[in-house]
Amino acid sequence: MNLVLLHDSDFIAPDVARLTGRRYEHITRVHRVAAGDTLVVGVENGRVGDGTIVRIDANAIEMRVVLDRDPPHALPLTLIVALPRPKVLNRVIASATSMGVKHIHLINAWRVEKSYWSSPRLAPENMREQAIAGLEQARDTMMPVIETHRFFRRFVEELTHDDTLRLVAHPHAQDACPRDLHAPVTLAIGPEGGFIAEEIASFERAGFRAVTIGARILRVETAVAALIARLF
Amino acid sequence: MNLVLLHDSDFIAPDVARLTGRRYEHITRVHRVAAGDTLVVGVENGRVGDGTIVRIDANAIEMRVVLDRDPPHALPLTLIVALPRPKVLNRVIASATSMGVKHIHLINAWRVEKSYWSSPRLAPENMREQAIAGLEQARDTMMPVIETHRFFRRFVEELTHDDTLRLVAHPHAQDACPRDLHAPVTLAIGPEGGFIAEEIASFERAGFRAVTIGARILRVETAVAALIARLF
Repeated sequence: MNLVLLHDSDFIAPDVARLTGRRYEHITRVHRVAAGDTLVVGVENGRVGDGTIVRIDANAIEMRVVLDRDPPHALPLTLIVALPRPKVLNRVIASATSMGVKHIHLINAWRVEKSYWSSPRLAPENMREQAIAGLEQARDTMMPVIETHRFFRRFVEELTHDDTLRLVAHPHAQDACPRDLHAPVTLAIGPEGGFIAEEIASFERAGFRAVTIGARILRVETAVAALIARLF
Repeated sequence: MNLVLLHDSDFIAPDVARLTGRRYEHITRVHRVAAGDTLVVGVENGRVGDGTIVRIDANAIEMRVVLDRDPPHALPLTLIVALPRPKVLNRVIASATSMGVKHIHLINAWRVEKSYWSSPRLAPENMREQAIAGLEQARDTMMPVIETHRFFRRFVEELTHDDTLRLVAHPHAQDACPRDLHAPVTLAIGPEGGFIAEEIASFERAGFRAVTIGARILRVETAVAALIARLF
C-alpha cells in the first residue's frame, strides 16, 4: 500500500479522516505507524497528499489530511481483455490499474471457458477491490471503469466509432505492435490460446489492426503489462 | 502448457518418449488426448517439434517425437532482481522465462525482508519448476540460469566488466528507459519500495545508468514485464 485511498465517507471533519477495518489493520500492522507519522494518501477520484496520524485507537486511526498534488496521468487506453480465469482476473485488474488504465472491458471469446462467467470474482465489489489495490500500488486515485460483456459478437459490432487507434494483439499477426504512441488506443487482448480466426476477422471489420509483440505465447497478465509498456 | 518439455531421460527409444507424473496428468486431464493426437513438444535445451501419442496407459503415455524446429530466440538480457516476496518470486521467474530471459540474478537489497531468504521457494527444484512453467508457456526449451546472491555489495562490486548496456530501473531517475534496443543489456530491478540511494550509487559506480518508465510504483512482476517489453 504505497498510498492510502480515502473515500468521502472517511472524513469526520474537512481535513480529518478516520479509518477502520482493512486500512486500519494494514497501517498499524504493516506500516506500524505512531502518532505524528505521515503517509501518502489520496481521495478516490481526487487529489493526492499527506496524511499525518493524529490519533490511534484500538480499532481506528485518525489522520489530518493535506491534499496538494494531482494523481499521475491516466493512460489514453481502452483495454479489452477476453475474460481470464478467475485467479488471473484479479491480477489483470490490479496490474492494468496500476499502470494507469481507466477503462477495461472484459469480454467473452471462443476460448474463454464458460465457467469463468459464474466466478464470484466478477462481482463488482471484488473487481473494485482489485482496482483499489492497483491504485494504492501506483499512488493513483482515479478509479477505472470495468465492464463485462457476455456476448462477443454484440460487443464488437456495437463498439461505437471513435478516433482511437484500434489494435488487437495476435501472436501470428504480420505487423509488429507500434511503440511509444502519443495518441489514444483501444487494445484487445485474447484469452490464453488467442482469439480464433473468426474473432480476429470481427475485430478487423470493426477497424482493428492485428499486431504482434513476438511469437512467444505469454500469460495474460504478462501480455497486458508488456503491450501497455510497448505502446506508451 | 503450450509445449510439453521433454528430458533426455524420458526417451525409451531415439524417437519415443514416455511420460508419467505431472505431465501425464496434465496431458490426459487438461488436453484430454487420444492416441493419434499431436502436441507441441521440445527437448530441454534442444529443439522443438511434434509429439504424436502412440499409447496411453493408466499412468503413462508414449509419444513419437519429431523435432524439426529451433526454439524461439533468447533475449540478450541479464536480469538482476532484488529478491521479491516468496509468492511473487514464482511469478517473476515464470514470467521472465516466458519472455526469453536466460540469466537471472536474485540479489539482496536494503528493502528485501530478511525472512525471504529462508523461503523454501528458493530451493533450486522450485525455481527450476517455475522456469519450466515459463518455458512451457512460451514454447521455449532453453533453461535459464538462476543465481542467488545474499550480499548486495559483494555482488555489485564483483560484477565483471562486460560490454552490455547496464541499466538500473529507478522510478525517480532523470533518464527515460531506452526503447527497442538491439544490443545486450544488464537490467537491475529493485524491491517493492525501490533500491535505496546508496544502492543506486553502487550500481552507478559499476557502470549502471538509472532509468525510469514513469513515477508509478509497479509490482515487481509488472515492472519486469513492462521493462523487458520496452527494452526489446
